[in-house]
Amino acid sequence: MTAMDFKKQNEAYLAEINAALDRATALEETPELLRRAMRYSLEAGGKRLRPCLVLGVREMLGGKENREMALSLGCGLEMIHTYSLIHDDLPCVDNDDMRRGRPSNHKVFGEGQAVFAGDALLTYAFEWMLKNGLLYNKPNYYRAVLEIAKRAGASGMVAGQSLDLLAEENGTMDGETLYRIHRRKTADMLTAAVLAGAYSADADEETLAVLTDYSDKLGLLFQLTDDILDAEGDEQLMGKTLGKDKDSNKLTFVTLYGLEKAKRMTEDIAAEAERILDSRFGDGAEYLRKMIYYVKDRRH
Amino acid sequence: MTAMDFKKQNEAYLAEINAALDRATALEETPELLRRAMRYSLEAGGKRLRPCLVLGVREMLGGKENREMALSLGCGLEMIHTYSLIHDDLPCVDNDDMRRGRPSNHKVFGEGQAVFAGDALLTYAFEWMLKNGLLYNKPNYYRAVLEIAKRAGASGMVAGQSLDLLAEENGTMDGETLYRIHRRKTADMLTAAVLAGAYSADADEETLAVLTDYSDKLGLLFQLTDDILDAEGDEQLMGKTLGKDKDSNKLTFVTLYGLEKAKRMTEDIAAEAERILDSRFGDGAEYLRKMIYYVKDRRH
Repeated sequence: MTAMDFKKQNEAYLAEINAALDRATALEETPELLRRAMRYSLEAGGKRLRPCLVLGVREMLGGKENREMALSLGCGLEMIHTYSLIHDDLPCVDNDDMRRGRPSNHKVFGEGQAVFAGDALLTYAFEWMLKNGLLYNKPNYYRAVLEIAKRAGASGMVAGQSLDLLAEENGTMDGETLYRIHRRKTADMLTAAVLAGAYSADADEETLAVLTDYSDKLGLLFQLTDDILDAEGDEQLMGKTLGKDKDSNKLTFVTLYGLEKAKRMTEDIAAEAERILDSRFGDGAEYLRKMIYYVKDRRH
Repeated sequence: MTAMDFKKQNEAYLAEINAALDRATALEETPELLRRAMRYSLEAGGKRLRPCLVLGVREMLGGKENREMALSLGCGLEMIHTYSLIHDDLPCVDNDDMRRGRPSNHKVFGEGQAVFAGDALLTYAFEWMLKNGLLYNKPNYYRAVLEIAKRAGASGMVAGQSLDLLAEENGTMDGETLYRIHRRKTADMLTAAVLAGAYSADADEETLAVLTDYSDKLGLLFQLTDDILDAEGDEQLMGKTLGKDKDSNKLTFVTLYGLEKAKRMTEDIAAEAERILDSRFGDGAEYLRKMIYYVKDRRH
């Protein structure tokens, strides 16, 4: 698989996912304002990394059936990811006015409606996945939905968000806390996506275990590069000193280790993620191998 | 079934539900602060009306099996109900400092953590129900979980919360809007509970339809009496004029119709709910018949 093949495959996935998300969120019984608020954030786009992972892993593992099942899980994951951004942007959390180049949800719809738009997206993700579950009626599908709930919730993503907010309020600045936060806040949802793809291909236990290791690294890599892009963006926008001041009380890989070391860390983690893939799949994991560098070398 | 039998049965259910909720929310992998925030609101108690309905309807319909299944659904419903109260109390929604005689979640844990405690309870409700689903592996169980997701979400409870907030901001004051709000905000979750009990007893389609009609009335009755209790509480606390002023811009059955008419409406709706039960169950629906008067005549 060349870099171009990977790009084309992801573009094809993206088109398929956006069409599926659009169908999934017709929301004909939802009141107009709530519907608009939910769709506003979903339609803001983004890379759709989580549903792409579901489709890519299923295909990589030779899953011949269950394409609809994988799409359903991917849509659920994207709804959950989107709700988490809405709640993270709220004034009582990160207080971000902008998201993906547009005003954040609460700037458009107000704080209360943004809380509800997030709640509705989260609940609807399960409504959608469960509705489809009754059609498929397969234990592996429900295992995937459970994995998503687990990694999105009280021991996964929300746990990471809560720890992150606590660390910021307390001015905590240590590596152990930082890893603990991002294993949960970022890596868990990527792991849920990878495992959802694997369940769609009826993967065995050992494959699931290796993929869990891999996506843990991919999640850390994603957060590292996110922190690096943020820091570099701040530098460009505001000049180095101001940029540094603004975020210096926030616990990130860059504020803790500095920009240069953070960049070196991405190389190490990428290499580790490759080794994990090699240990099990050899050449059969090209999609996930390319994904490492797609995440590492992205520009936004 | 005498009033005393009903009371005893509900007390037995309550003990069973509280024990089940306690087991369900050990949350050993959840960080300490988030775990405390989630349990703080769950443990505040309340009548556990929704899980009681699940257990009561299952038993009333002669369900001999699936008691664990009904308890699992009841716990899920109570977690979802609890999260909705946390988010409703937030400053950007109802701005309530107190809930069930204790400081509301955000007064104790802060607004951001309260948002996450709610998100975590909602997600965990599905995690818990799905985890148990893999043990039971029954289509009717998953139908019940889907019903809960649907009635809790974008076309149910959250839709009602969003409409309620919008009506308050716009100063909307008409009966049609009021009914539309409370069908979704209050009745839908009671309907989900009643139907979850019915699915646990493998009820047929006609039974499900009649129970849906019944719980629609029970929901309106609940909201009517809630509004009446609030209005009477305000009168006692603050004197009639002040109490009226405080809530006069909020759309409730009392502000719209006045206290006396609202009280007469409760009698009519209670009678209607009884007629619906009679049409299908005759004497076999004593639990739900008593429930009407339990809701109507309660003092808190």
